Amino acid sequence: MGLSELPPSPEEIVEDPMLMTGGNYIKEGLDSAKSICLIFSPRDGDQVGGLAKCLKLFEKHSVNLIHIESRSSQRFPSQYEFMVECAPGGDIGGAVTNLRQNSAYFQIISRNHKDNRDTVPWFPRRIRDLDKFANQILSYGAELDADHPGFTDPVYRARRKYFADIAYNYKHGEPLPHVDYTKEETETWGKVFRELTKLYPTHACREHNHVFPLLIENCGYREDNIPQLQDVSNFLKDCTGFTLRPVAGLLSSRDFLAGLAFRVFHSTQYIRHASCPLYTPEPDVCHELLGHAPLFADPAFAQFSQEIGLASLGAPDDYIEKLATCFWFTVEFGLCRQDGHLKAYGAGLLSSFGELQYSLSGKPELRPFEPSKTAEQKYPITEYQPVYFVAESFEDAKEKMIKYAHTIPRPFGVRYNPYTQSIEILDSKPQIQTLVDNINEEMQILMDALRKL
Amino acid sequence: MGLSELPPSPEEIVEDPMLMTGGNYIKEGLDSAKSICLIFSPRDGDQVGGLAKCLKLFEKHSVNLIHIESRSSQRFPSQYEFMVECAPGGDIGGAVTNLRQNSAYFQIISRNHKDNRDTVPWFPRRIRDLDKFANQILSYGAELDADHPGFTDPVYRARRKYFADIAYNYKHGEPLPHVDYTKEETETWGKVFRELTKLYPTHACREHNHVFPLLIENCGYREDNIPQLQDVSNFLKDCTGFTLRPVAGLLSSRDFLAGLAFRVFHSTQYIRHASCPLYTPEPDVCHELLGHAPLFADPAFAQFSQEIGLASLGAPDDYIEKLATCFWFTVEFGLCRQDGHLKAYGAGLLSSFGELQYSLSGKPELRPFEPSKTAEQKYPITEYQPVYFVAESFEDAKEKMIKYAHTIPRPFGVRYNPYTQSIEILDSKPQIQTLVDNINEEMQILMDALRKL
Amino acid sequence: MGLSELPPSPEEIVEDPMLMTGGNYIKEGLDSAKSICLIFSPRDGDQVGGLAKCLKLFEKHSVNLIHIESRSSQRFPSQYEFMVECAPGGDIGGAVTNLRQNSAYFQIISRNHKDNRDTVPWFPRRIRDLDKFANQILSYGAELDADHPGFTDPVYRARRKYFADIAYNYKHGEPLPHVDYTKEETETWGKVFRELTKLYPTHACREHNHVFPLLIENCGYREDNIPQLQDVSNFLKDCTGFTLRPVAGLLSSRDFLAGLAFRVFHSTQYIRHASCPLYTPEPDVCHELLGHAPLFADPAFAQFSQEIGLASLGAPDDYIEKLATCFWFTVEFGLCRQDGHLKAYGAGLLSSFGELQYSLSGKPELRPFEPSKTAEQKYPITEYQPVYFVAESFEDAKEKMIKYAHTIPRPFGVRYNPYTQSIEILDSKPQIQTLVDNINEEMQILMDALRKL
Amino acid sequence: MGLSELPPSPEEIVEDPMLMTGGNYIKEGLDSAKSICLIFSPRDGDQVGGLAKCLKLFEKHSVNLIHIESRSSQRFPSQYEFMVECAPGGDIGGAVTNLRQNSAYFQIISRNHKDNRDTVPWFPRRIRDLDKFANQILSYGAELDADHPGFTDPVYRARRKYFADIAYNYKHGEPLPHVDYTKEETETWGKVFRELTKLYPTHACREHNHVFPLLIENCGYREDNIPQLQDVSNFLKDCTGFTLRPVAGLLSSRDFLAGLAFRVFHSTQYIRHASCPLYTPEPDVCHELLGHAPLFADPAFAQFSQEIGLASLGAPDDYIEKLATCFWFTVEFGLCRQDGHLKAYGAGLLSSFGELQYSLSGKPELRPFEPSKTAEQKYPITEYQPVYFVAESFEDAKEKMIKYAHTIPRPFGVRYNPYTQSIEILDSKPQIQTLVDNINEEMQILMDALRKL
Repeated sequence: MGLSELPPSPEEIVEDPMLMTGGNYIKEGLDSAKSICLIFSPRDGDQVGGLAKCLKLFEKHSVNLIHIESRSSQRFPSQYEFMVECAPGGDIGGAVTNLRQNSAYFQIISRNHKDNRDTVPWFPRRIRDLDKFANQILSYGAELDADHPGFTDPVYRARRKYFADIAYNYKHGEPLPHVDYTKEETETWGKVFRELTKLYPTHACREHNHVFPLLIENCGYREDNIPQLQDVSNFLKDCTGFTLRPVAGLLSSRDFLAGLAFRVFHSTQYIRHASCPLYTPEPDVCHELLGHAPLFADPAFAQFSQEIGLASLGAPDDYIEKLATCFWFTVEFGLCRQDGHLKAYGAGLLSSFGELQYSLSGKPELRPFEPSKTAEQKYPITEYQPVYFVAESFEDAKEKMIKYAHTIPRPFGVRYNPYTQSIEILDSKPQIQTLVDNINEEMQILMDALRKL
Repeated sequence: MGLSELPPSPEEIVEDPMLMTGGNYIKEGLDSAKSICLIFSPRDGDQVGGLAKCLKLFEKHSVNLIHIESRSSQRFPSQYEFMVECAPGGDIGGAVTNLRQNSAYFQIISRNHKDNRDTVPWFPRRIRDLDKFANQILSYGAELDADHPGFTDPVYRARRKYFADIAYNYKHGEPLPHVDYTKEETETWGKVFRELTKLYPTHACREHNHVFPLLIENCGYREDNIPQLQDVSNFLKDCTGFTLRPVAGLLSSRDFLAGLAFRVFHSTQYIRHASCPLYTPEPDVCHELLGHAPLFADPAFAQFSQEIGLASLGAPDDYIEKLATCFWFTVEFGLCRQDGHLKAYGAGLLSSFGELQYSLSGKPELRPFEPSKTAEQKYPITEYQPVYFVAESFEDAKEKMIKYAHTIPRPFGVRYNPYTQSIEILDSKPQIQTLVDNINEEMQILMDALRKL
Repeated sequence: MGLSELPPSPEEIVEDPMLMTGGNYIKEGLDSAKSICLIFSPRDGDQVGGLAKCLKLFEKHSVNLIHIESRSSQRFPSQYEFMVECAPGGDIGGAVTNLRQNSAYFQIISRNHKDNRDTVPWFPRRIRDLDKFANQILSYGAELDADHPGFTDPVYRARRKYFADIAYNYKHGEPLPHVDYTKEETETWGKVFRELTKLYPTHACREHNHVFPLLIENCGYREDNIPQLQDVSNFLKDCTGFTLRPVAGLLSSRDFLAGLAFRVFHSTQYIRHASCPLYTPEPDVCHELLGHAPLFADPAFAQFSQEIGLASLGAPDDYIEKLATCFWFTVEFGLCRQDGHLKAYGAGLLSSFGELQYSLSGKPELRPFEPSKTAEQKYPITEYQPVYFVAESFEDAKEKMIKYAHTIPRPFGVRYNPYTQSIEILDSKPQIQTLVDNINEEMQILMDALRKL
Repeated sequence: MGLSELPPSPEEIVEDPMLMTGGNYIKEGLDSAKSICLIFSPRDGDQVGGLAKCLKLFEKHSVNLIHIESRSSQRFPSQYEFMVECAPGGDIGGAVTNLRQNSAYFQIISRNHKDNRDTVPWFPRRIRDLDKFANQILSYGAELDADHPGFTDPVYRARRKYFADIAYNYKHGEPLPHVDYTKEETETWGKVFRELTKLYPTHACREHNHVFPLLIENCGYREDNIPQLQDVSNFLKDCTGFTLRPVAGLLSSRDFLAGLAFRVFHSTQYIRHASCPLYTPEPDVCHELLGHAPLFADPAFAQFSQEIGLASLGAPDDYIEKLATCFWFTVEFGLCRQDGHLKAYGAGLLSSFGELQYSLSGKPELRPFEPSKTAEQKYPITEYQPVYFVAESFEDAKEKMIKYAHTIPRPFGVRYNPYTQSIEILDSKPQIQTLVDNINEEMQILMDALRKL
């Protein structure tokens, strides 16, 4: 998937009016109508009984808990940390006030962050938290607009529902369901595949052309075969640790970008309508597998993409939009210069026979990729781009992205721990020390390797 | 599992005499009777046709391939690298000679390394390569010695076979099978649990006592319940990235240690015979879950254990034995000093009511952990240890282990890539550069976090 | 001093025609009319007799040596390295050919690099090599142009000669001569001092205003006293390690910038003519002490300046000009934005009552400092600048400068060793290892400091 | 010089009894009879008037100031820091109490630390602070014991006074005075030189033998010439940044070790009495130039020595003694193993014809160098050592020394800034950040150099 289908301000979608009108805002401004997530370390956190005490507080305030997780604290050595997700209802405000008083560390992570100054916008902390996105999709993948090529085709609509259901029920860690594509679907893929592979040698960037033969050999990329997501995901995992997961519909920019922080790419699995093989108003499996997948196998590009994701975690809403715009002009529609020639690396280009040629034709305007400026550029989503941004290299784009990310107001640093597949929030000394220890360990590996060279 | 069951020289097991007597050693000394693994970059490795040419060479020499993998080369930018596993039979020597001439990079990884000066002892490169160990077990888990408490109990033996079969058929990525333990089994567990938990507050190290309540809360550690490996594995994954995988029988030291390089611990799932609840001649689920699991949830200990594993990859046979000895005196029987008191952190102690008390009784000899010396210490495997080694801290033990590892003769450095769950062999400049880039990126994270502190 | 007085292409100065016309170019294209500097490691460099053999080669070819230096080799552990400076005359080409054959490492460093493809442009390797610049000045400081305010003033001209002679005879390590300024000279300083200090609080950057009171307190900055270079140099040494050394006349850009690599600033000591206290066609002590000195006391600015210097060492001629242009638009005429306000940090502005006001008036064009673009900008040297470049911060400017420096074609990296006050040429593995060891040691200091925080 | 002449507990020298008995201890326990040094940042430290206010406080309490230094604060960005040295007399306690109330940072550094819990033992912060040691010598170099070979020789005693006076009057930055040695003195040197150079090829470590020919070539090391300290100091400066400075007499261990932190070695300049050319009860120029100088030209050894120095700064008295013992068993009497052979690197051995042979004879006891143990070893100072400690390599010894240093209780980390030749006290976040920035900059250099390799 990508962001091509996203309305420019995804956060503005109308919320359930029932929830918004209430007036029943609780103490500390917490909206009891939505679940919130609390992370805290009890003040007497080195005692085993710490959690039990806290749980009584929720009971006292009639707050039901959806999920409890107890772990070793990252902030206070030899203490514990709890993460609880509260169901809507009950006196959450009261519970929060009480808990805060008894906690050495306390943070509210909330999807209602706009109503609450004290909260950090919700973001996933572990890779399996991405499962929660299924309930947050902005529009279900089976719903088609009136101008969609498949709008009047009941078979196609049923097929779309089939794919949406697969994704809706998917949980992290499960194998990606194998799909038997129909003959018609495979033919549509074949047409797209045939046309695009003609252009790749001259139009695609070096990295795309380097990886493509490997996909043919390892993942069944052929004119007469639509590759299985699982095979592609396995291949990417081997190359860079990226994995695919199916997506049931439109994600908010915030959720979509968050996936990248975990090197997880939300991918559609259905294919465009057979009536228009070279056009699709939305991402489909051609876009994902021909456009996105090859690039995610490149280490530098994988890092670049993850940086956008990491930058988005807990960022204010306006920055989410800026980051989504950066994503648009790089991962979706990016150009780069290689050996003096302009080449495409954006998936929106590499999966569009027409725009791929247009983008390199010399007609559109080209500007250097500079996140602070690129982030402000407006763009159309239903026609060819009037402006493209050119990256010097993925390494350079990554470094610029990192620098830009550091300008995002956020009261903590973040680091992805690939061992635990979780996000570490860096806001205290012990975590800094752990990070320095890690760097030191890498230094030892470097010194040993140099010695042996 | 652990190494307690390992004969001191696991590599000396008698090989199939048919294979050894032959005289039919092929050119380059390669024993065609065992599969070997080749990694190479064709000299014209930037062409897509490179692989096809190479495959013809195997055909020409009648060598069948079990597995082919093509990937981007880590050594030569924008070139490819192939890994092929050759089946026994055919003129492997001829194929090797031909291939070597056409390769920019060529390495033979072999289980027959003792017969071949040019080869590197085989070691897993990806986490899923650990699946290959199932075929390498030195004795199948269902076979019991005559003096085993369950030797004459047909029900117990059938049960042991059941567990061994689970492990034998297990593949990386699958869920660890849920086991319904019998009432008798649970009672045996209960007796062990009850006795040991009395000793932990005074005898176990700080880290064990810190993690234990979390295991009770998250993984069903209770007197009346044997925890499921999957639950414990999930918990460890969240804490440090360690995972458990079931093991069907006795692994060689080389294979067992290699698992640790991936933060994978090979764990038994069966329980000791009910007739002797406080004694077992071999590791069982009590040993694994009460002894090992709590420690693998500690980040510093997890790193320490992984370091032993990384040090073992491709190491000469004599060093494998030294490392196994270090493992024995730390992960299995290690003591440490905390706040002036001697405490146990070795799983062999933490799962033995008798030896746990004995080890801290002041009777046995204590020496400081110093890998180069510890590695040379002989030890009995069927009685209490006469000598224990005392670590200052896990960090300190880790650093000493790293230093010791650097003295192992090996023509390359290694690094674990937790994104791809694979081992990177550091033996050329591009890899050093990637490593330095990684360090640099961590530095940027550090700088950002410091700014925000 | 600064670059304000430099002709745009300082390398184009007419060389002694006798030397240029000759046709008597020796073998390997080495011009025997100029001294060259050779650095080499004999092939049998671990023997003490290595040098003696080499010296015989020079003798054989009638080459006289001005300077010989033998040191431990940085490239070949436990071997030696020699640096010899050959006097003009003799068969240098022959000696070079012979020596090269017997050397494991061989490099010619030459002021005649334009005539010799094989040579690296000369640059100082040790801080005391800066003494050689005295013989390279493009015009002696006592010579005044016809339009100079002091052209017809014999007393002033004599005074200028006095200052030039001081500088000409100065050697590294000596104290900077104390100068008794005349009453008239002090009055000129007083007028400049009075006017500029009125503007500083509103026009100068934060760093200048922070340091200025310290200069008043520590170095005798007063309306009625011209500070002594030695006092200012001592102060700078304490703050950042920068030192001043007197300069007898116009240096080439290459030489001037090279000084910065050692944190050495070439400073004039004379003062402008009393007839025009608020104007000077060239740098004088007011420019140096009021404009430059305060900034060199700031650690980030000191690093930035040194980066320009390091980038220049051994760089091709066209890059020297680009770097000189960067210097011009930063150290001489740089602006920066602080707390939303535009401020001046360039010495040319901070020492000019008129241009300081003009530069912040909103009239001139402002562009962001971006070395690759700034380096190409043309500029007038006798009037106010039409374009200024604005830095975000010194740290940011430094990072950009470092990145830019890495684009300069140069077959080696350089590093300043502040212990030995010498330049290390990084072009082999042992040096990389030393660098990594140093980084590692700093990491240990960091870890200890974090522990103690 | 070295520590061979130091009484085991140099801090126990009898203080002026008047000071010790009095009951006249001032408020805060500050002994007004000795000067103390205060470092502080005024609370309103961003105002220029901050210092003036503070100075009035001293006046009010009748405290005279010997030295005032104002600098930019390392701890509070854009604020100032003052260092004042107070003369004995006046109400220092009162001034201290007042000042402390008005300071954001306040520290007393005192030679009287034993009487004052709140103070840090005095240590030099800048290289020129070493000038203060001249007034702290424990016994003046011209005083000879009754059993000294030159005790009854008035000419020799006069000569000793001459050398002591040179050193007493020496100030940092001055050239080291050239000494014309007498014919007799040169003959004594010649005898020592001749005997020792016979042993070096077989007895001295690789580093000593590598450097020795360079000293012959560059510094006038010859049988018939006593090298000048200045020439040797220049050479060392070029190699490692070490310099020599003359010493007038016996320094305390604390002061002597502090010099090493700056890579400054306090060296005697006189020579032993001609009557016993192969024996001296104290260090002399033979010991310094033949024993110490060659090693200080080796980068790894230079770092090792500096580490001992850095560890000593502000350390408690008992640790000073431990560090002095480590110095004794390494820099003075250290052995190392090279290519399987035992070699000497300690200056006490390399300057003693007898002990050099004895130490490698197999007779004395050898133990591995392990700072925590070596530091506790007692030793005789007037006879051959019964025990020697063997280092694996200088790098290894350095790493062990660093680790040991981190166990010394001291409320701050220290770092030597070779640009400013000063000690940075790391006890706050801005300094940590600066350190991380430095590491980052070295990383950039590394990345550039790797790219160019």
